[in-house]
Amino acid sequence: MNLLHNADFAETKPSTESLSLRGRLFATRALSGALAAPLSDEDQVVQAMDDASPTKWHLAHTTWFFEAFLLKRFLPGYGVFDERFEYCFNSYYESVGARHPRPKRGLLTRPSAQQVRDYRAFVDAALGRLVDQALSPEAEALIELGINHEQQHQELLLTDILALFAAGPLKPAYREADPGVRAGKAAPLEWTAFDGGVFAVGHDGEGFAYDNEGPRHEELIRPFKLASRCVTNAEWVEFIEGGGYTTPTLWLADGWNIAKSQEWTGPLYVEEADGGFMQMSLLGSRPVDPAAPVTHVSYYEADAFARWAGYRLPTEFEWEVASRHVPLQGRTLGAGHLRAMPAQQAGALQQMFGDVWEWTASAYLPYPGFKAAPGAVGEYNGKFMCNQFVLRGGSCATPEGHVRRTYRNFFYPHQRWQFTGLRLAADA
Amino acid sequence: MNLLHNADFAETKPSTESLSLRGRLFATRALSGALAAPLSDEDQVVQAMDDASPTKWHLAHTTWFFEAFLLKRFLPGYGVFDERFEYCFNSYYESVGARHPRPKRGLLTRPSAQQVRDYRAFVDAALGRLVDQALSPEAEALIELGINHEQQHQELLLTDILALFAAGPLKPAYREADPGVRAGKAAPLEWTAFDGGVFAVGHDGEGFAYDNEGPRHEELIRPFKLASRCVTNAEWVEFIEGGGYTTPTLWLADGWNIAKSQEWTGPLYVEEADGGFMQMSLLGSRPVDPAAPVTHVSYYEADAFARWAGYRLPTEFEWEVASRHVPLQGRTLGAGHLRAMPAQQAGALQQMFGDVWEWTASAYLPYPGFKAAPGAVGEYNGKFMCNQFVLRGGSCATPEGHVRRTYRNFFYPHQRWQFTGLRLAADA
Amino acid sequence: MNLLHNADFAETKPSTESLSLRGRLFATRALSGALAAPLSDEDQVVQAMDDASPTKWHLAHTTWFFEAFLLKRFLPGYGVFDERFEYCFNSYYESVGARHPRPKRGLLTRPSAQQVRDYRAFVDAALGRLVDQALSPEAEALIELGINHEQQHQELLLTDILALFAAGPLKPAYREADPGVRAGKAAPLEWTAFDGGVFAVGHDGEGFAYDNEGPRHEELIRPFKLASRCVTNAEWVEFIEGGGYTTPTLWLADGWNIAKSQEWTGPLYVEEADGGFMQMSLLGSRPVDPAAPVTHVSYYEADAFARWAGYRLPTEFEWEVASRHVPLQGRTLGAGHLRAMPAQQAGALQQMFGDVWEWTASAYLPYPGFKAAPGAVGEYNGKFMCNQFVLRGGSCATPEGHVRRTYRNFFYPHQRWQFTGLRLAADA
Amino acid sequence: MNLLHNADFAETKPSTESLSLRGRLFATRALSGALAAPLSDEDQVVQAMDDASPTKWHLAHTTWFFEAFLLKRFLPGYGVFDERFEYCFNSYYESVGARHPRPKRGLLTRPSAQQVRDYRAFVDAALGRLVDQALSPEAEALIELGINHEQQHQELLLTDILALFAAGPLKPAYREADPGVRAGKAAPLEWTAFDGGVFAVGHDGEGFAYDNEGPRHEELIRPFKLASRCVTNAEWVEFIEGGGYTTPTLWLADGWNIAKSQEWTGPLYVEEADGGFMQMSLLGSRPVDPAAPVTHVSYYEADAFARWAGYRLPTEFEWEVASRHVPLQGRTLGAGHLRAMPAQQAGALQQMFGDVWEWTASAYLPYPGFKAAPGAVGEYNGKFMCNQFVLRGGSCATPEGHVRRTYRNFFYPHQRWQFTGLRLAADA
Repeated sequence: MNLLHNADFAETKPSTESLSLRGRLFATRALSGALAAPLSDEDQVVQAMDDASPTKWHLAHTTWFFEAFLLKRFLPGYGVFDERFEYCFNSYYESVGARHPRPKRGLLTRPSAQQVRDYRAFVDAALGRLVDQALSPEAEALIELGINHEQQHQELLLTDILALFAAGPLKPAYREADPGVRAGKAAPLEWTAFDGGVFAVGHDGEGFAYDNEGPRHEELIRPFKLASRCVTNAEWVEFIEGGGYTTPTLWLADGWNIAKSQEWTGPLYVEEADGGFMQMSLLGSRPVDPAAPVTHVSYYEADAFARWAGYRLPTEFEWEVASRHVPLQGRTLGAGHLRAMPAQQAGALQQMFGDVWEWTASAYLPYPGFKAAPGAVGEYNGKFMCNQFVLRGGSCATPEGHVRRTYRNFFYPHQRWQFTGLRLAADA
Repeated sequence: MNLLHNADFAETKPSTESLSLRGRLFATRALSGALAAPLSDEDQVVQAMDDASPTKWHLAHTTWFFEAFLLKRFLPGYGVFDERFEYCFNSYYESVGARHPRPKRGLLTRPSAQQVRDYRAFVDAALGRLVDQALSPEAEALIELGINHEQQHQELLLTDILALFAAGPLKPAYREADPGVRAGKAAPLEWTAFDGGVFAVGHDGEGFAYDNEGPRHEELIRPFKLASRCVTNAEWVEFIEGGGYTTPTLWLADGWNIAKSQEWTGPLYVEEADGGFMQMSLLGSRPVDPAAPVTHVSYYEADAFARWAGYRLPTEFEWEVASRHVPLQGRTLGAGHLRAMPAQQAGALQQMFGDVWEWTASAYLPYPGFKAAPGAVGEYNGKFMCNQFVLRGGSCATPEGHVRRTYRNFFYPHQRWQFTGLRLAADA
Repeated sequence: MNLLHNADFAETKPSTESLSLRGRLFATRALSGALAAPLSDEDQVVQAMDDASPTKWHLAHTTWFFEAFLLKRFLPGYGVFDERFEYCFNSYYESVGARHPRPKRGLLTRPSAQQVRDYRAFVDAALGRLVDQALSPEAEALIELGINHEQQHQELLLTDILALFAAGPLKPAYREADPGVRAGKAAPLEWTAFDGGVFAVGHDGEGFAYDNEGPRHEELIRPFKLASRCVTNAEWVEFIEGGGYTTPTLWLADGWNIAKSQEWTGPLYVEEADGGFMQMSLLGSRPVDPAAPVTHVSYYEADAFARWAGYRLPTEFEWEVASRHVPLQGRTLGAGHLRAMPAQQAGALQQMFGDVWEWTASAYLPYPGFKAAPGAVGEYNGKFMCNQFVLRGGSCATPEGHVRRTYRNFFYPHQRWQFTGLRLAADA
Repeated sequence: MNLLHNADFAETKPSTESLSLRGRLFATRALSGALAAPLSDEDQVVQAMDDASPTKWHLAHTTWFFEAFLLKRFLPGYGVFDERFEYCFNSYYESVGARHPRPKRGLLTRPSAQQVRDYRAFVDAALGRLVDQALSPEAEALIELGINHEQQHQELLLTDILALFAAGPLKPAYREADPGVRAGKAAPLEWTAFDGGVFAVGHDGEGFAYDNEGPRHEELIRPFKLASRCVTNAEWVEFIEGGGYTTPTLWLADGWNIAKSQEWTGPLYVEEADGGFMQMSLLGSRPVDPAAPVTHVSYYEADAFARWAGYRLPTEFEWEVASRHVPLQGRTLGAGHLRAMPAQQAGALQQMFGDVWEWTASAYLPYPGFKAAPGAVGEYNGKFMCNQFVLRGGSCATPEGHVRRTYRNFFYPHQRWQFTGLRLAADA
């Protein structure tokens, strides 16, 4: 009964390697529109919870980002589309000024979705004029930042829509499942050992990276081994059935408190039905696939699972060093699955990129020598370096070209609405 | 810049006197659609606050009411439009079963606004078939109840939309102001004296009334006098400037606590600007009209004002007895103003119906001998007879035919988002 | 194992009839000390919950009342004991000035219990000097008010200590049970019919009364009947077993919400144990006595019970008129039981005074013509005339001489820590 | 006017170097009693806030620790003092069983302070019998743990009492100030540079350490420099006056949110008075000493200050490595000041131990290879390794012998009621 058209991501997928900055800019802009296309205006206006934002807000905020930080500064004669939009669509840039309260983003039925689409077109046209000019390195860097910023919001758009669709009783699918795709069995869990030593980690300055990925610096790493693939739903069911959610000594105290008060008995969106488990997904409510990576688990659950299994989570540096042994590719958004798929290659370190973000044991802190950039752009990453944990690798909802070996995603340890899973590690 | 078309209430206005039950039923159903017409689907899905509901929800809930209590019982062969709607659109009928949580009504982007319009059409068609039959008295009574129920929600639809539009930064108008309408001066405040005695009050059983308006019974009323019109904004400004919001001894303790914690400095939606006061309204943000009745005040404020002024609020019975001296007419929704208008007749008891609901000094309690009806319909009014105060008279948003001398509206004493004002009283 | 000495109320019990104002003043002052005597200084400093106050605070606040409203005005040359005490021990008199926040009364380990005892002695000495003088009528009236004020706090002292002792795991007894006292069977429930008519109610001005008991005025009362005794624990168990706490249609909506969110399954302090019910009391945790009146129930529960039983609660005026048919006596604090005792007389209207406060169906509102006194003393009762319900009759913890036919006690409908029960009524 | 006797810590101060395990055990037990001695029973029962515990609870809990983990296992024939105490005084050991809720520790007026003192004497006597026996290494290790556990609670006892005394209006002194002690000027801020390299950090296994101080392992440290002393109140005033509390870009986002919502304008307990700053302390409310280290600041404030000053906080490993260059001594509890004192030596790295705990930039996480011990004792430190930051060095309230170069204290970044300050660091 779901009448949504499939979003045709494929057509708008930027082939990041070959495209110019201009090409990547407009491919990214187009992808946001394509991601919103299956959604009604109603779907786009509502905020599922405080942590989430409405689709329309994502579409407008990413546009405002270009307007505020690029067009107003670098495009002579640019007049803003609507001066009230800065108040509406500034996210958290204290330097820029007052803004609409985050928990009330879902009350913005005005400006309308159509006005936001017009806003996007207006800003895109101006961006077209801007990139026709000779660009200063600073403007180029800000365009690059704007592209990456919008890519982040593309992933959030999808996870926030999932949160919304999961909150109602109808459990609609964002996209109907592709009937041709069959999930297979998961490869057996194997281990890859890595030597210790002092390794340079962090971004080396070539190509785009967020400020929080640097400075590149040395880290001392002890010999370790890493699981060949992520923890699967089948393994998670063993954890549940083995008392994972009822044994306090497996848990961090803060995690146990929230698990009890919110009555967690499994990953987010999972419900028992007819003796099995269903989980709400972008393809609607579906039986949990035992072979697929567990997803929508918090750091607390990931940490408890690792303790229960007799292992631990890897540090972000272990992960980064190990990732150098595999190609920078995986089932991200462009793969079109919109869900985490089973790891199926035997004997290989795999699934490092795509499928699910992997919780690491590393608190999200500044690298040695990190300084936030001056001005509003400096509020991008640094001010969140507290109380969160680093996730690595990217997910089934991460746009193409938005995965890096040095990429540091971060969320609070209780948060579960992203495509978050885990990979086990151990001392060698 | 607001492109909304005026809702043409006039055309759909039921002339309640002359219309048959069938006529009134479909006029009421049509009016709901007309009230929603100026709103986008986005406007219709969002819930401004826990106390409010989305427009779409009002449209669907009133429809479900007919389906659940009438069509399923009295129309042979009726199949429900979508069995999931009962969960979505039951408001508070515990007898009927589980329901979507009230604070999450705004998350229901599905079913869509279009599906709800289809639902309305489907149910209207079935209602057409139903009323073509010979109706039992019980079915007739339930149709009457359904009409009145929907009328209540029409008023809520408007006050809830106002709450939504007031919550965002753009302050859109639900309808553009009619440029031809000029507000004049308010008539001077005069007093009408009424004799005391034992009076029969409450509904006498002729024509429709809610269960809470009966049983008709006797009340002892002491000689009193009543102000000729409602308290005006000009008078309220005197109260503000005379320390009304900073003098605790004027207030009930519960009221003072909430006024301090929520930082009340005037009626809801009022903001100071350029040395004057603006108030958000269904016509957008407008300068406060000194001659118009103050509106969007709580019981606490009304009570404090009366104390400050040296008077008191009338009891609901004083109001009811006094109302018998004036015609049952006033500027309700059909007048088309969508705001409270000044009382302009000198020397007369006026404004008893329409413009603003008038807080009374009466707690909302059952009349002697009141028994709730058995079954779900019995949950209509009785279970709220606690912690609320009675308001009388109707407002600028009350549908035609939905005012009665015996009508008992009720809200919690802190609530302000309705068109609520006050009229002063005194012992004679 | 409980080493508390019995409080010897008997010796300090004022025989209110025969005593002079002076005698009653000091008897009342002495009784407060006697009530605190079984408590350690530790017991006296802690606040069980926001609604309750520490014993020490009651002892100091009642003393401050005399100091602030009497000694400072009427005793020449009086110097306050400690000027900081006004901030510490003012309860809610906005007119008097800033005060220590109510929920933090339990943090006042300083001044110490001993300092408060010294304060009491200091103020008592000054009061002795004051009453040796010729007193103005205003001063006499304020002494009378101070006595009654302190009596109110004596009851609160006991209910607040019970709340404290119930909150810990040791469940200590405030006083050991008197082994000689045997509870018997309850008299069967009978009904007394009363004629309707217009009755003068409220205090007639003779002797002391609170301002909220007047003005005396006429009320129209319909023929009614009243149960001969309060509802018993045995009857309440039937209600529980008959689904009283699981049937939403029996309840007011606000009551049902709080009952669900707080998981009420019986009166406050009741716990199931060994197949029976235990209830914490001032005599420690004891088996629920089937014959005794149910106590520690909210208005919501009382109202639901009455509906379940097919009756209703009386109005406060029905109660008052009926009370004129029985002597003004009952098992109040002086009876020494410290708990509600069974009604044992067959065929009589009984238990109207003492044992338990009886919830009425009347919202706590001002009587016609009520005006609060000017100044701080005027904050005594009037500012609470909202959102509460009237209770009548007095309890096992009400001091001698503090019951009146016109006495209006009031609490919020969810509150349960007082000795609150109910008596059924019906239309005649 | 404050009549407290000075606690004579000096006499009970354990000289940790020379004492046997037995000696240290009973010296520690005696010190707890001495610390409570200036407090009335009232002072000892109240809980100032959820984060704090009553003195009596500390006294009983530390005693229960010995009873539960030592006497019941290792002293044949030991019978517990009162079996209900386990429920009352277990802190957070899920393995042990149900326990009284933390936020309600202040409701335990029973058992009484005297009963707790008796409990201490009873357990001390049993401990005496135990240590007269030949002890297994496990028992010895648990005694050592019990000593250290009690020392931790001694510091908490003092900071919790300060929180209590600061919460009331009387601002009593825990101990009168020593009139002979004069604070001097602070030494100028100087910098000591340290080489980078790979350093072994963490406890080496000799002598007692908590499990969280190991395993000893290697850390890569970059060249850095460290301030010679802690940040002073005078420097903090510059920060305040330089907009420290009003400039969001100086702050972590989580910190800014809490600073705004709680209206922070300076360190905890600081109030402006007469143009200067007063701060509540264990010596009562006193003028802020410009030369003394700032104390009662959160991690958020410490981090913002460092950013404002152009520096950063040291990592816990930088701190630990630097600390090897100074003797393991400082002004801890035994120094008797009960407040942080100025650093007065020019040119030296000083104040590393005592005065104030120093916030580090290190999240509190497990060291490589850390495993919590099995059983309840394993719940000691590991389950808190999330969302907190490490503090190093000890404070003016840390007992003698409870400072170590490897000691890892930890608190949430918003917490301020400990004696927490900071020392600046920079890259070399």
